[in-house]
Amino acid sequence: MAALQFNLQTTDTLSKARAGVITTDHGTIETPIFMPVGTVGTVKAVTQQQLKQEVNAQIILGNTYHLYLRPGLKILEAAGGLHQFNGWDRPILTDSGGYQVFSLANNRKIKEEGVVFQSHIDGSKHLFTPENVMDTQRIIGGDIIMAFDECPPYPSDFKYAKNSMELTHRWLDRCINHFNNTTDKYGYTQNLFPIVQGSTYKDLRTESAYYIASKNATGNAIGGLSVGEPTEVMYEYTALCCDILPEQKPRYLMGVGTPWNILENIALGVDMFDCVMPTRNGRNAMLFTSKGIINIDNKKWENDFSVIDDGIDCPMSNYYSKSYLRHLMKAKEYLGLTIASVHNLAFYLWLVKQARAQILAGTFTSWKNEMVVRLQTKL
Amino acid sequence: MAALQFNLQTTDTLSKARAGVITTDHGTIETPIFMPVGTVGTVKAVTQQQLKQEVNAQIILGNTYHLYLRPGLKILEAAGGLHQFNGWDRPILTDSGGYQVFSLANNRKIKEEGVVFQSHIDGSKHLFTPENVMDTQRIIGGDIIMAFDECPPYPSDFKYAKNSMELTHRWLDRCINHFNNTTDKYGYTQNLFPIVQGSTYKDLRTESAYYIASKNATGNAIGGLSVGEPTEVMYEYTALCCDILPEQKPRYLMGVGTPWNILENIALGVDMFDCVMPTRNGRNAMLFTSKGIINIDNKKWENDFSVIDDGIDCPMSNYYSKSYLRHLMKAKEYLGLTIASVHNLAFYLWLVKQARAQILAGTFTSWKNEMVVRLQTKL
Ligand SMILES: [Zn+2]
Ligand SMILES: [Zn+2]
Repeated sequence: MAALQFNLQTTDTLSKARAGVITTDHGTIETPIFMPVGTVGTVKAVTQQQLKQEVNAQIILGNTYHLYLRPGLKILEAAGGLHQFNGWDRPILTDSGGYQVFSLANNRKIKEEGVVFQSHIDGSKHLFTPENVMDTQRIIGGDIIMAFDECPPYPSDFKYAKNSMELTHRWLDRCINHFNNTTDKYGYTQNLFPIVQGSTYKDLRTESAYYIASKNATGNAIGGLSVGEPTEVMYEYTALCCDILPEQKPRYLMGVGTPWNILENIALGVDMFDCVMPTRNGRNAMLFTSKGIINIDNKKWENDFSVIDDGIDCPMSNYYSKSYLRHLMKAKEYLGLTIASVHNLAFYLWLVKQARAQILAGTFTSWKNEMVVRLQTKL
Repeated sequence: MAALQFNLQTTDTLSKARAGVITTDHGTIETPIFMPVGTVGTVKAVTQQQLKQEVNAQIILGNTYHLYLRPGLKILEAAGGLHQFNGWDRPILTDSGGYQVFSLANNRKIKEEGVVFQSHIDGSKHLFTPENVMDTQRIIGGDIIMAFDECPPYPSDFKYAKNSMELTHRWLDRCINHFNNTTDKYGYTQNLFPIVQGSTYKDLRTESAYYIASKNATGNAIGGLSVGEPTEVMYEYTALCCDILPEQKPRYLMGVGTPWNILENIALGVDMFDCVMPTRNGRNAMLFTSKGIINIDNKKWENDFSVIDDGIDCPMSNYYSKSYLRHLMKAKEYLGLTIASVHNLAFYLWLVKQARAQILAGTFTSWKNEMVVRLQTKL
């Protein structure tokens, strides 16, 4: 089995958008790509069958923090890793748990060694270090695993951001060292992506991007954005990072975002995205469609028997009506959560597939400029 | 389009079990059959695609009480009936709402005219009469619709049960009269099934069964059982009713029950069943399987990576492991509810399909006697 490869097919002439193919031991991923978030080993309210047949997901995420707490490493290891455990046989990416430790856990203390925290479920005490997070991700068995980093809040003062970045860099070296001294557990190759930090300071981001680029990893990530900063600031720092990170490696912008955020960041050279927005907003009645945004709770859809979105290729979005979905959401029926989640994910996957086709056809930029307006229309 | 037909294929020699085929304008139903309950126009947590592809459902139920309150008749009529509204193109049976009025609604008052009650959702006041319940079921558009009856509680004293039965019979005549004076709304034929009542009094049940049989409906139902009486009493009264109801018409035992209840009642001559048990118990972590009962919350399944039930033909039951399903239920993930509901329904449909094959092969009784023991085993 072989390390992750990236075949860069085309770069747009009017923007920095790229089309490529990532090859992993669990199959290929056409980029740009959106990765549905499968928090606890499940993309909420969606079956693995629906992820393949309706959503066309090529790769999904698992959250190390959640999986470490539940079902726990003993069960995941006995199952033979997450792919065996949840029956998803395409690529999986796991985050490092860092983000959740900072956003979900209680009483966290950051030390040079790592982070001590209490579980948000039962208050039990745990320690994440660069080394044991590599071991944990080895056991979960993602095809792509992430370095353990600190994601500083926005805004952070310069001193905090600089210290945090330097800690992240020292942790990265420990991650790489431990990763290289351990082996794949399940017969396929795992790949470690480092993460650019540096908050919203140009010199820190620049330093961090060069440091990450110097590690010559099979792919690189940009973290610490989409954490509350203005959209224009996110775009500015994504552009800065993309221009430094190696051209021949995939670039992953973590935790972004809306459909228009994704299109703008594709234009800046990002290849991979993840976000809980399609599923979380779907569960809260907000639908992204090829024609704009729908609040399906709105009374205006009560008698609209047209299908949810005939502009995309998802069978479910072309089957159930807006009126039926509204009824399910008003009646708080589980099926409403499933249909809304499947639709929104299918829409995100449709969108990146269209972006890819436009890049390959050389028509991306004008299409993107039209779409970012259309997709934000309130229907 | 044509009225419902029943082709009785075989009757078991050692029991009164029958195999047959019901033909409706939305397709055929092989009996004995179990009908998943689609309360508010959705079988809870299950998509219509899963009902077809995983569960093999041939007909589903809709609850008139629930659909009348939400989404309401205006929307259902504008949609072109429930089939169009929820995208289920196989047969649908709707109950009359009587049972829910007595079990869910508030401040109900039974009068000769009908029942006044308050919605359990918003307290609004409503009147159900035999006539308007026929109109309501015409609008919902079930292929099979049910007479409006009173289902007396268990136990009821003789005088209450007798008065209730006589009211149900007078209501039945009004239902038939109004049904015959109204027409199918959507181009396919609707069929009205009357319901035997009479509580647990032999003379009342006998009188009611003869009265219902005399109406020469396309099918007949047995109501007022499985409401708290001992199982042996349920079997006794099912047998009594089946022996009086016409042989050449399908017999529907309402609201029953466990897998072994279903097998025993098939042996007494019942052709059609419905119950919320597979979905409701599934959501509460109780699985019915071909080898016995599983409480999937139990720690013993934590490391059991075998599939949920390899003894039945449902793809999902043969895909996900017990360990994974347990994890989903413990983490309160929606996907757990879906998998458990799909599995339990698929098991019920598998069971009646096996029963049918055994009846046709002439081996039903010995198979049934084995199965009622095996299915109750606690695993
Ligand atoms: Zn996000
Ligand atoms: Zn029941």
